[in-house]
Amino acid sequence: MAHLDNSVAIVGAGDYIGTAIAKKFASEGYLVVAGRRNGDKLEPLVAEIEAAGGRISARSLDAREPEDVTAFLAEADALAPLALTIFNVGANVNFPILETTDRVFRKVWEMACFAGFVTGRESARLMLEHGEGKIFFTGATAGRRGGNGYAAFAAAKFGLRAVAESMARELWPRHIHVAHLIIDAGVDTEWVRERIRQAGGPDNPPGLMPPEAIADAYWQLFQQPETAWTFEQEIRPYGETW
Amino acid sequence: MAHLDNSVAIVGAGDYIGTAIAKKFASEGYLVVAGRRNGDKLEPLVAEIEAAGGRISARSLDAREPEDVTAFLAEADALAPLALTIFNVGANVNFPILETTDRVFRKVWEMACFAGFVTGRESARLMLEHGEGKIFFTGATAGRRGGNGYAAFAAAKFGLRAVAESMARELWPRHIHVAHLIIDAGVDTEWVRERIRQAGGPDNPPGLMPPEAIADAYWQLFQQPETAWTFEQEIRPYGETW
Amino acid sequence: MAHLDNSVAIVGAGDYIGTAIAKKFASEGYLVVAGRRNGDKLEPLVAEIEAAGGRISARSLDAREPEDVTAFLAEADALAPLALTIFNVGANVNFPILETTDRVFRKVWEMACFAGFVTGRESARLMLEHGEGKIFFTGATAGRRGGNGYAAFAAAKFGLRAVAESMARELWPRHIHVAHLIIDAGVDTEWVRERIRQAGGPDNPPGLMPPEAIADAYWQLFQQPETAWTFEQEIRPYGETW
Amino acid sequence: MAHLDNSVAIVGAGDYIGTAIAKKFASEGYLVVAGRRNGDKLEPLVAEIEAAGGRISARSLDAREPEDVTAFLAEADALAPLALTIFNVGANVNFPILETTDRVFRKVWEMACFAGFVTGRESARLMLEHGEGKIFFTGATAGRRGGNGYAAFAAAKFGLRAVAESMARELWPRHIHVAHLIIDAGVDTEWVRERIRQAGGPDNPPGLMPPEAIADAYWQLFQQPETAWTFEQEIRPYGETW
Repeated sequence: MAHLDNSVAIVGAGDYIGTAIAKKFASEGYLVVAGRRNGDKLEPLVAEIEAAGGRISARSLDAREPEDVTAFLAEADALAPLALTIFNVGANVNFPILETTDRVFRKVWEMACFAGFVTGRESARLMLEHGEGKIFFTGATAGRRGGNGYAAFAAAKFGLRAVAESMARELWPRHIHVAHLIIDAGVDTEWVRERIRQAGGPDNPPGLMPPEAIADAYWQLFQQPETAWTFEQEIRPYGETW
Repeated sequence: MAHLDNSVAIVGAGDYIGTAIAKKFASEGYLVVAGRRNGDKLEPLVAEIEAAGGRISARSLDAREPEDVTAFLAEADALAPLALTIFNVGANVNFPILETTDRVFRKVWEMACFAGFVTGRESARLMLEHGEGKIFFTGATAGRRGGNGYAAFAAAKFGLRAVAESMARELWPRHIHVAHLIIDAGVDTEWVRERIRQAGGPDNPPGLMPPEAIADAYWQLFQQPETAWTFEQEIRPYGETW
Repeated sequence: MAHLDNSVAIVGAGDYIGTAIAKKFASEGYLVVAGRRNGDKLEPLVAEIEAAGGRISARSLDAREPEDVTAFLAEADALAPLALTIFNVGANVNFPILETTDRVFRKVWEMACFAGFVTGRESARLMLEHGEGKIFFTGATAGRRGGNGYAAFAAAKFGLRAVAESMARELWPRHIHVAHLIIDAGVDTEWVRERIRQAGGPDNPPGLMPPEAIADAYWQLFQQPETAWTFEQEIRPYGETW
Repeated sequence: MAHLDNSVAIVGAGDYIGTAIAKKFASEGYLVVAGRRNGDKLEPLVAEIEAAGGRISARSLDAREPEDVTAFLAEADALAPLALTIFNVGANVNFPILETTDRVFRKVWEMACFAGFVTGRESARLMLEHGEGKIFFTGATAGRRGGNGYAAFAAAKFGLRAVAESMARELWPRHIHVAHLIIDAGVDTEWVRERIRQAGGPDNPPGLMPPEAIADAYWQLFQQPETAWTFEQEIRPYGETW
């Protein structure tokens, strides 16, 4: 597969990473199928991709609702055989342990782990029919390190990583490439810049990763031959301390 | 603290590991407070510990219900200041990814991760009042490796490990020892022996870890001075392949 | 940099991986500078690359001799500014611990670790002058796991990984991309095929990684923008059990 | 074994950790056999242990000389069957990569890795004759993380960890407990205190680990039943940031 009569589904097509991924794969000729909460926010992206001659289908999607995920992926696959699903739902929070409520812990897990599990499983169901496919998950440093104040976020991201690894071991031999891309840096978004400003940092902070670089990393993973697949890849800017 | 006017709470006082832990800490003089589903199953344990001159309080506990966990720990602390909580709820399942239902994924997480988070947080709330305490979590190899067929179990166990690590970073400086004990072996239980028999294995398989050895490992962790604490410790039998 | 007036140095240009890397980078227009023991064995590679219109300079190199490595890299940099060094010296051996002699342990380390350290340091010395560059190390699973019988090989490969990581932390902020590529599979070489045959395996074993796929992986790393560099990447064939 | 007619050999019986280990095992009734460079520096330790009623044999030892190590361990085993060897040679240095000379890189490796390999192998040779024994290695955080400026030290410590892990996989099934204890903190030594003072730190810095706590951790490892052995254990003070 992986020719141009395929679709690429993005679960969690947010303003930054998801948007950059959509533009990249549309520019390479794929039909992009993008879902996010408040799907009307995708209108500018649709306009931009279509103006550039690309193809995109966008709609609202609540990734925590399994039936919605199943329907979303089935629609994508009906438009054109699903070659790639990227799960990109985030849910970063930081609370001292005593202030981490049951509700927050559960909600962050539903968004960042449970939704990823459902997205992966339902993508696999379609791709096993095709005999091939790719399922990529956006991970974070919190998927490998439980930092102070990150019990909820790290538990969800550790869990997502476990799902990805378990699926990779089962599905690689069936020609489905499951991978986990770890973004070990702040992403250059307005929200991150504002947090840095509030913490007394510079207006134009160095060390933020442009969303386009993440899209390029996914494109590289997508290009790998099945004789040399990567399960986990970590990216960070040259100047980041780690 | 850590003298004999203290209680030790066991969340998930099952037939094997939990029982062995209860006997060990009771034999060392602590008041053991044991909770599990179907608390009436604890009656033989209570009888055995009391016959040996130990002290134990046992009752039914659904660790997935935060209010029940809060009450259980408060009761323990009221009986005698809570020196140690051990979270020992298991939920091992194995399914191919397509057969891993939403319900199973969620339930395993509620038992092995969410319940651990609540147990940890509520123990910390009590122990921070005392200015000291210990919170230990029973982990498994699946907390570090997402094996084929273990998406649900590994996601929960990875998540539990994240909770433990995040709590350790926050609470160690406040004199609360949070640790994660990884059992990298089959535990010698009737259920495990039956699975081995069904798989064509021997009636008396080598390489199973006796529950008493796990209790001893917890006792060692409990004895560590705060100048040299361990966060994560992995134990396996000498003959286990790893 | 990274335009076509640059050289790419390969330390350990063996018959398989090194050869594939040389062909790839020569085909992309770079001047390849290849070194290995018994440099006359490089004659067919030189002929093949030149016949295809590429540029290559080849010579004998004992990577365990620091002065030889320094001279080799200086020669490469004099031919054209050094954009990339790939360290690709292998030394896989397996002995029970009691049969692992001092001499073997030391020699494997000199080849797979010490030579890598010298290659990295001397490359950095040249690249820091240019203000940029890339240094990649070929790693193995034995760099993360000390297997039974691999005390010598794993000690060397662990050490190489430590060198790479330490250099990455120091040199990334100075625009030098240091990376460690882990090959988690048998490479498709005549030697590996022979070992498989001797172990009773098939004449045409599945699951071997073609050297060309490794060269492609290095090419991908080489293409990464400095806003999203990878330090460590692991590749294995889709059918490999891990 | 492990009764009181046994010897415990310490390779690298330095002023702090090694000394504390010697006192601990002597106080538990074992015959301690201690080696270090400049063995005459061991005289006060010998006097102290003997004054307390303990037994110790001390002498000069260059752990980088295999024949010296072999003789040292044979002497220990001749005095009383060797129950435990602890390898405790350190070699911490920090240099920018360009200033890390071949000589330093090689010497640090000879002290911290090669000597450990020889010590482990020669101990195993004796213990396999007894059918049991224990071999413990003192590790450091640099055995898991290649920090900026630590190419030489990390390469050696990574290598030591690889040796320990490889030996553990081979020797555990033969009843020899091989373990790796990671000290993730500054040890409370005069040298460390001086470095902290020079860096502008306090005269009485918090967060240093007392050597006695390390000795206690080794004692705990020594006590583990073979049904529940630990390969790797990390210890740090409660207040340490990690």
